[in-house]
Amino acid sequence: MTIQTLPRVPAEIRGLIRSGEYGGVTGSLAPGYVQANLVILPKAQAFDFLLFCQRNPRPCPLLEAMEPGQFEPRLTSPQADIRTDVPRYRVFRDGQMTEEVTSIEHLWRDDLVTFLLGCSFTFESAMVDAGIPLWHWETGKNVSMYVTNMDTVPAGAFSGPMVVSMRPIHHKQVVRAVQVTSRFPGAHGAPVHIGSPERIGVGDINSPDYGDPSGFKENQVPVFWACGVTPQAVALQSKPPFMITHAPGHMFITDMKDTDLAAL
Amino acid sequence: MTIQTLPRVPAEIRGLIRSGEYGGVTGSLAPGYVQANLVILPKAQAFDFLLFCQRNPRPCPLLEAMEPGQFEPRLTSPQADIRTDVPRYRVFRDGQMTEEVTSIEHLWRDDLVTFLLGCSFTFESAMVDAGIPLWHWETGKNVSMYVTNMDTVPAGAFSGPMVVSMRPIHHKQVVRAVQVTSRFPGAHGAPVHIGSPERIGVGDINSPDYGDPSGFKENQVPVFWACGVTPQAVALQSKPPFMITHAPGHMFITDMKDTDLAAL
Repeated sequence: MTIQTLPRVPAEIRGLIRSGEYGGVTGSLAPGYVQANLVILPKAQAFDFLLFCQRNPRPCPLLEAMEPGQFEPRLTSPQADIRTDVPRYRVFRDGQMTEEVTSIEHLWRDDLVTFLLGCSFTFESAMVDAGIPLWHWETGKNVSMYVTNMDTVPAGAFSGPMVVSMRPIHHKQVVRAVQVTSRFPGAHGAPVHIGSPERIGVGDINSPDYGDPSGFKENQVPVFWACGVTPQAVALQSKPPFMITHAPGHMFITDMKDTDLAAL
Repeated sequence: MTIQTLPRVPAEIRGLIRSGEYGGVTGSLAPGYVQANLVILPKAQAFDFLLFCQRNPRPCPLLEAMEPGQFEPRLTSPQADIRTDVPRYRVFRDGQMTEEVTSIEHLWRDDLVTFLLGCSFTFESAMVDAGIPLWHWETGKNVSMYVTNMDTVPAGAFSGPMVVSMRPIHHKQVVRAVQVTSRFPGAHGAPVHIGSPERIGVGDINSPDYGDPSGFKENQVPVFWACGVTPQAVALQSKPPFMITHAPGHMFITDMKDTDLAAL
């Protein structure tokens, strides 16, 4: 099944993922619907992680935090099953990735707490709608991501630097980009820095720590947003005994519409 | 010491509260600074309460959630002490109020988790600054509050109806009131209802469940906002073995400025 022939309604796409008929990346699926980063941790680590998200809403915009053992995301996606409806999962033990799987039913435990975090697809759609072109959309590349010298606010076992994504924006559209993304605090919100990579500890803009290097056009300025890689990086650094995430690009598609996330 | 002679800087006011020199209500103190509702619960109940706040940001806008046993609110008010810097506390055991005290040092335990929640003073100041008069400010009364038929989103042991506050607003200023308060999601944010009390389960607008009845002037419409009484009411309904809150009107004054809370 190719992306072009897939249905556009989240519940139908999740059904195809659940049955194994689709297992690819989710970037262009279900336009207009919110996609989410996934972090699953045992209850013993969950309070601290929830605190961490509460204290770091830019990198960790929490869409839903579920009760221990609960696998139906009742608030954002009733009837979905978090154990089967993500195309690809990564399993980590003591901070090391041990396997990549397409279902976690066999790994499920009553003490697992699921966190769904907003993702940049939401604000990127808003920018494109507002006429702000995105190089990595046009070229099919990954966005450039960097580890910065900006600390997150620690919570219990969790601490570490903020990871940011960067998009080259024409200087005449920088203000508009701030306005448009400010409307979506549930999807990383406004930029965290404009213009000077060295001020946030980014040495070489052409050597991102994650993703692909970006092409700059004339009069474009680097604009940086808090990135959803942050919570995963921070969680892994604390070496939790057990943790599950989505595989990069293989997101959970919620029933929420992008417009539901708009602050104003 | 009277309100008129008090200093205007939060740390200085907190010092006077700590030493027992001031013990009154905080409404007009430290203008421009964020005041907070206080909820303290044992760790055993704290994860569910944190989830509850995350799921109900309108009535429960979390400014800071502290680590178990921590009594310095490092994020919003470094060097303050949550055990002594609130003018008056209420102590509840098994859901019943057992005492009102001016310090909780003798009650402190290593498993207590402190939650600071945004309060309506912030958005009320913004409305008054925008030229929207508030009857309860002008008359020195309490705002009218009502239990509604709108359910909060449950979390673990916590569930119950949303409590709202109501302010009569001239029909020509209703849109402006929505705009101004929308800027402060950290202080209850935009209204939850405009115009028809019966639609949200409020029977008699002149008989509030908490606070004083409001005086309506010609062409004024009732406008309802989610109220910080909600989390306390919901927490008490679950009859936690131990809980501490501020006494009504006796808030914790943070070092945050109202403008720090503005979304845009």
